[in-house]
Amino acid sequence: MRRHRSSLGALLHHVHVSGPLSRAALAERMGVNRSTILGLTAELAAAGLVREEPPSGTTGAGRPSFVVLPESRRFWVLAFDVAVDRLTAARVGLGGPVLDRRDVARSRAGADLDTVVRELATMGRELVAAAPADSVAAGVGAAYCGMIRPGDGMVRYGPEMGWVDQAFGAELERALGLGLPVAVGNEAHLGALAEYARGAGAGSPDLIYLHGDVGVGGGILVGGKLLGGESGYGAEVGHMLVNPVGGRPCLCGSAGCLEAETGEHAILAAAGRPEQSGREAVRAVIRDAEAGHLAEAAAMAGIGDWLGIGVANLINLFNPGVVIFGGVLREVYAVAAPEVAARIAQHAMPVSRERAKLRLSGLADDATLLGAADRGFAALLADPLQHDFSS
Amino acid sequence: MRRHRSSLGALLHHVHVSGPLSRAALAERMGVNRSTILGLTAELAAAGLVREEPPSGTTGAGRPSFVVLPESRRFWVLAFDVAVDRLTAARVGLGGPVLDRRDVARSRAGADLDTVVRELATMGRELVAAAPADSVAAGVGAAYCGMIRPGDGMVRYGPEMGWVDQAFGAELERALGLGLPVAVGNEAHLGALAEYARGAGAGSPDLIYLHGDVGVGGGILVGGKLLGGESGYGAEVGHMLVNPVGGRPCLCGSAGCLEAETGEHAILAAAGRPEQSGREAVRAVIRDAEAGHLAEAAAMAGIGDWLGIGVANLINLFNPGVVIFGGVLREVYAVAAPEVAARIAQHAMPVSRERAKLRLSGLADDATLLGAADRGFAALLADPLQHDFSS
Repeated sequence: MRRHRSSLGALLHHVHVSGPLSRAALAERMGVNRSTILGLTAELAAAGLVREEPPSGTTGAGRPSFVVLPESRRFWVLAFDVAVDRLTAARVGLGGPVLDRRDVARSRAGADLDTVVRELATMGRELVAAAPADSVAAGVGAAYCGMIRPGDGMVRYGPEMGWVDQAFGAELERALGLGLPVAVGNEAHLGALAEYARGAGAGSPDLIYLHGDVGVGGGILVGGKLLGGESGYGAEVGHMLVNPVGGRPCLCGSAGCLEAETGEHAILAAAGRPEQSGREAVRAVIRDAEAGHLAEAAAMAGIGDWLGIGVANLINLFNPGVVIFGGVLREVYAVAAPEVAARIAQHAMPVSRERAKLRLSGLADDATLLGAADRGFAALLADPLQHDFSS
Repeated sequence: MRRHRSSLGALLHHVHVSGPLSRAALAERMGVNRSTILGLTAELAAAGLVREEPPSGTTGAGRPSFVVLPESRRFWVLAFDVAVDRLTAARVGLGGPVLDRRDVARSRAGADLDTVVRELATMGRELVAAAPADSVAAGVGAAYCGMIRPGDGMVRYGPEMGWVDQAFGAELERALGLGLPVAVGNEAHLGALAEYARGAGAGSPDLIYLHGDVGVGGGILVGGKLLGGESGYGAEVGHMLVNPVGGRPCLCGSAGCLEAETGEHAILAAAGRPEQSGREAVRAVIRDAEAGHLAEAAAMAGIGDWLGIGVANLINLFNPGVVIFGGVLREVYAVAAPEVAARIAQHAMPVSRERAKLRLSGLADDATLLGAADRGFAALLADPLQHDFSS
């Protein structure tokens, strides 16, 4: 029985991650025969989780293999993303489509727990109210730019927002009042999982995801599993010390951290614009660098040097298959790739880097949001028919 | 049947790692009842792999629970350890005792593959010749101070010995002529596994082992599994860049690597003894530092600073339960602990370090050798009765 339930979950997971799949493709991926797929699909279809369609564009002889699709409009989760300078809430359907969303720029002042939770809950309730009446909320996931305690979603430390030991998960759950638990994760951890499931890291179980917001976060997969460590706080890549002598002060209290040398403040300071802030200001510096303005180009080359040292260290330590640049680091890497490559050539062991690929995020600004959504879908995918939709 | 074999292997693994265990303790660890233990033990005893004894010092009422012991003198492996400045070969019994060994200081000149393999094979054959006639060679394992390709034991890169793509595993197997495969691993990887199995890391599945030889190696466990990465070359801790501006040149071609700043050459240079070499010379510097000689104490404080930066970075990245100092780093850490602690306090995130313990190797100079022995025992432990002892 347990085995049957996990087969149902596995099939649903395949169509959730990969989108429409033929019965034949499902049979091959799951290592079972087509009649088993037929039975599992029928059960999931009866529960309204998937539907079957004849394949489009079938030609030639032979029976067409029906395509199984997730019921994206019927089953959805609420996904939240708390970045330093904006809040996002979205209704994400089974299969991953963003069905509806709210993004608000967030003032950097007044970022206390109550304010953030109130704003998120308001957006979440709006999304729920706008959902079709016959649709089902399957879960809630949230990404947060800080160190998150597994289990209860406590923010242990979020230096950019000044949070220490704030009961974010519990408070958001209470404020939403949906009767659904809120699964919280570190934004870069969730981004790494999302890139592995459906982004630039698909097929690469040894993966490093670097996320640039105001700070720099990291999510690392080792053998396809998130590196949590002893307590779930692994991959604090942004606070790896790369510049020990005379490095820039970091919000964490140290100096010379990767985040201090490559984050938003470092970029704007290097470009002579320390009074500015925000990702648009960063993008303006990068556009000027790309356009050949010497001061901005020199600034970004310097940033690329530090970023390259950080990546070289990660390659030596993790022998990854892929390193993915996400968030604002997409743009940073795009302009600083030569410096990053030079540092890797100089400091990463040839054997460690011979198979490492560098890639831009495949999910762009939604990597962390989609990672949060997947966290919300976890209970449904673990046991599709027993899941409690009583809400 | 497969399940039965894996139960036999699990029982044998328990007594191999933990030594004599009562039937009751085995039943509890394996989650089966005592009659199952009785049956498994009888099969292993019939094959000569374990024996049972009444417990010593039984007092009071109740039936004594018999103790199951590995037949350490009957089943053994050959274990080799190739360090930069010495070669070790040992006969290690089931359960871990070193039954016989040969250690030779190695000249740093003439360290080509043929010479090293010939010396190891000579020592190995001597050990085999001296083994009891009714005893059984169950496997061969080897630790090497370089990057090892999984599968065939090719040394991809061993900077301290100047090796690139040398077929070490295959050549040692051929030279030994025992008809047994030689399982090769990176010395620090094997040290990490040994410390987890029976050393200072027992019970800590998120573990970092730092090994000081002439260079600095690392072995990292994530969730109880060795961090291999995409190709098996993970945890090149010694080549993490810690001093990017004006760092000491490293044998790998970079500069400012952890190894360049904390390895043998760095210690001897800092102490004003660059013409010396060898671990005895390093230990002499440390003894002088401990005795209060100012120059040596200052030298070791500087080494401790760099070591602390490296450890702080590892704590931020891995959120480990324990960091273990092995090889010569035992002595280095013992004298430089204040500087290491200060750097961790300064650069490691409080949440990342709150549960991290720093420990000296529990297996002292034999961590890597015992890790190699466990590699040699792997086939026997995987399938105790089907193992081919035809050699």
